[in-house]
Amino acid sequence: MRLKVKVLATETGGKLIVTLSKEDAEELGVKSGGRVKIKFNNNELTAVADVVTHTVRSGLIGMFDEVQQNLKVNDGDIVEVEAASFPKSLSYIRSKLNRRPLTYDEIYQIVKDVIDGNLSESEIATFITALETIGLDLEETYNLTVAMVNTGGQLKFDKQFVVDKHSIGGVPGDKTSLILVPIVAAGGLTIPKSSSRAITSASGTADRAEALMPVDLDLNEMQRVVNETNGCLVWGGALHLAPADDIFVQIEYPLQIDPLMLPSIMSKKRAVGSKFLIIDLPTGRGSKMKTIGNAELVAKDFIELGRRLGIQTQCAITYGEQPLGNSIGPNLEAKETLEVLMNKKSSPDLIDKVTHLAGMLFEMTGKNHGRNLALEILKNGKAEKKMREIIYQQGGDSEVKPEDLKIGEYGLEIKAEHDGLVLWIDNNLMVEIARAAGSPKDKEAGIVLHKKVGHIVKKGEPLFTIYATKTSKLKDAEKILETNPIGVGDRHEMLIGSVKETPKGKRAFILER
Amino acid sequence: MRLKVKVLATETGGKLIVTLSKEDAEELGVKSGGRVKIKFNNNELTAVADVVTHTVRSGLIGMFDEVQQNLKVNDGDIVEVEAASFPKSLSYIRSKLNRRPLTYDEIYQIVKDVIDGNLSESEIATFITALETIGLDLEETYNLTVAMVNTGGQLKFDKQFVVDKHSIGGVPGDKTSLILVPIVAAGGLTIPKSSSRAITSASGTADRAEALMPVDLDLNEMQRVVNETNGCLVWGGALHLAPADDIFVQIEYPLQIDPLMLPSIMSKKRAVGSKFLIIDLPTGRGSKMKTIGNAELVAKDFIELGRRLGIQTQCAITYGEQPLGNSIGPNLEAKETLEVLMNKKSSPDLIDKVTHLAGMLFEMTGKNHGRNLALEILKNGKAEKKMREIIYQQGGDSEVKPEDLKIGEYGLEIKAEHDGLVLWIDNNLMVEIARAAGSPKDKEAGIVLHKKVGHIVKKGEPLFTIYATKTSKLKDAEKILETNPIGVGDRHEMLIGSVKETPKGKRAFILER
Repeated sequence: MRLKVKVLATETGGKLIVTLSKEDAEELGVKSGGRVKIKFNNNELTAVADVVTHTVRSGLIGMFDEVQQNLKVNDGDIVEVEAASFPKSLSYIRSKLNRRPLTYDEIYQIVKDVIDGNLSESEIATFITALETIGLDLEETYNLTVAMVNTGGQLKFDKQFVVDKHSIGGVPGDKTSLILVPIVAAGGLTIPKSSSRAITSASGTADRAEALMPVDLDLNEMQRVVNETNGCLVWGGALHLAPADDIFVQIEYPLQIDPLMLPSIMSKKRAVGSKFLIIDLPTGRGSKMKTIGNAELVAKDFIELGRRLGIQTQCAITYGEQPLGNSIGPNLEAKETLEVLMNKKSSPDLIDKVTHLAGMLFEMTGKNHGRNLALEILKNGKAEKKMREIIYQQGGDSEVKPEDLKIGEYGLEIKAEHDGLVLWIDNNLMVEIARAAGSPKDKEAGIVLHKKVGHIVKKGEPLFTIYATKTSKLKDAEKILETNPIGVGDRHEMLIGSVKETPKGKRAFILER
Repeated sequence: MRLKVKVLATETGGKLIVTLSKEDAEELGVKSGGRVKIKFNNNELTAVADVVTHTVRSGLIGMFDEVQQNLKVNDGDIVEVEAASFPKSLSYIRSKLNRRPLTYDEIYQIVKDVIDGNLSESEIATFITALETIGLDLEETYNLTVAMVNTGGQLKFDKQFVVDKHSIGGVPGDKTSLILVPIVAAGGLTIPKSSSRAITSASGTADRAEALMPVDLDLNEMQRVVNETNGCLVWGGALHLAPADDIFVQIEYPLQIDPLMLPSIMSKKRAVGSKFLIIDLPTGRGSKMKTIGNAELVAKDFIELGRRLGIQTQCAITYGEQPLGNSIGPNLEAKETLEVLMNKKSSPDLIDKVTHLAGMLFEMTGKNHGRNLALEILKNGKAEKKMREIIYQQGGDSEVKPEDLKIGEYGLEIKAEHDGLVLWIDNNLMVEIARAAGSPKDKEAGIVLHKKVGHIVKKGEPLFTIYATKTSKLKDAEKILETNPIGVGDRHEMLIGSVKETPKGKRAFILER
């Protein structure tokens, strides 16, 4: 069917969508949400058709910017339109719904159609839901990982020990990577570290690093920085290492499911050529792994998947029941990082974790007493020096001082209401408070913890301070304090919570990449 | 955040969507696909936000017609926008993903949010996929049915025996309802029959009936027709009996899954107050129920669900391996229907099925020898008379003659290539051929079968004829004939098919309501 283009001069935010009149849609045999193939000169694409009532009359096809630009058509051009058959990958998704494991070719086609925009959001949601409810076996996980690698950018380093570190996330204020990268790079290993911005957290590693240096490097720039310094701290988004993952994450986020965690993490490690890998599995109340048993099962999968991918993988099961160090929020965390690297400050839990993980990498690559080596590199200033090299190579101010990092001018100090011991800190509420205060978009917003689990407090002593750049944001954060984020009491206090009616499903989902 | 309205003057086809600049979306803390709550004067609604790059600059909010009209805003109006929390029903969907059966309240909220547009397509897809992969127990099926009834229109008839009949579909040319309705209505029962248009088939019962009379009646008109004649044959779409189902179907269709079959069918029967119900389960190769064992399991569910809903339900397991009667396509089927009602033509399989099913309804309501009664009403002309009353009351021409029904002027006769027995007819290919010829949109298009399974044919004898109103459509249909839709051979021929490589998943999905 030949239709005349009506340029809608409006975007969809990336989706390929056209609008059709009811008459033409019926004539084509296409329903709302169905697909049409559109040809113009030598260009051709498949778009989703929305059937509309009055803005496009019969004989016209409404084109959103994404389609119009792709096809290079102008208002009034005549295009050839036909009903497109559903993409083959849809039948593969269906076969997964019937509980048949997917082959590599099938998975590759699904991933490719996701990237090419040939699968609709609801079809991708079905794929993700099927993976969540039916599960993936390790072969499928492997194939999905490889398919994601093969549809994205890749790097290769001509170095002896290319290592990497990744956390499955969930711990607010986790600055481990920012300190581990310079330690292991200073120790002679190569660590091309990419990380994500916050998805549901108060600050992602890319957000923290960005407080100190530009992080939106492309693959070439990343390669150059790593060649110069043995390390880097860049945002994964501009690297396009596994572009399908960005689309998957958008759909997983509202649904609060994450069946693609392993392929998502491992594809990016494989893409940058890592050969030795530490996966951090923060465990316990308020983190992603609720039990050590669970963490061990996931560790098993990471190790075996790593083996198949040629990445020697070890996992660290770490205590994840409270924020790490004493700050949450990009600038606050960057400040704490600098202070620790400069040996100006002791954040004992942070240093313990960093040196354990760095030590594991040193031992995996043949060094003895890995943890001591890591501690030494931190203490003797080599880590700080390396960090400043990385900052310099990524285009930041290598002379940056902790006090250069601006913190929101409005503070709200929360004090203990009675004497006691800090029994628990609610990770999710801390994240909610920091986000309400403006983090991570507002780099100056966040939280400083004055007490942590096990500390003794007196009535009236400050527990934590919330920082914001606007009083309205501080008020938003204050509202959340109606639920108590820190438990202060006696060691013998037994009651965790009382359930007097059907609990409201609290939204506390950890999605980090 | 206060934003100025930019009217986009474009529809989305029903979805509530706005566009935001990247800056404002970040400031609001909303990602693409996230939700915003928009307030203007006393109007308020929640819409999905698409984040765009250039068509809406910071400070503006782009509004598609659906949102603009709902909020009653004009270009340049200032609206108050905030990030909306995800709807509660999303947490219920998540709880289903965790394999916890849903309660009535949870299901009701999901159904309501589907209708109100508070759940995105991918979230609804997740719900449907979870039902497909995890399954619904009978309690959930019952609750979903009731929720769908309670969110739609309802009817009540003050009659002794309100009966109904429904087929789960899959048999091309199935005119059973068109003949059964006048038979049972003439027999003194009340049958407020609503049906759907074709979704994946060549012709739905509403399409067939529409060849004889208007079918897009509203609830009041339907009630009037039933009060006058004891029966009706109307399209369900204008009745809004279970509006959620229309949305579910749109998402199920590309995915080719149908976990909501029972609630979808039964909610509409309950909504019109049916008390006695026959469910037709066409069974066998090429139909929805592949085995009798399967059909019996589904029958069990229908009967038990009916019991809980106060609908006495029986099921008929019928032979579904070939088209019913000898015609496919709205006008051709309406013609065959009239001829059978006028005793001008013998379509033995059609008459056998109709009278068995009508007979079951008669016996359920206390009459003896139900099948004989049904046959008698058909033979003595009372069924035809009743049909003409219904046609008249629905606003059609009650004097309509079979020859009034126009058939496509272009015909293509397919002849037997050798002598033999008709061994099989491929339902799905027949549907594909009829659809390619223009059916159901083009009411004059379709197929007439000259031979059916078990018939003896001579080389050169016509097997079937395809009708179309355009030669181009006939050519489209002819292309499908590359795969043979009718098997002619010797009774002893054993090979059904040979699989020499991974079979391509053929798209042969039956979705009827």
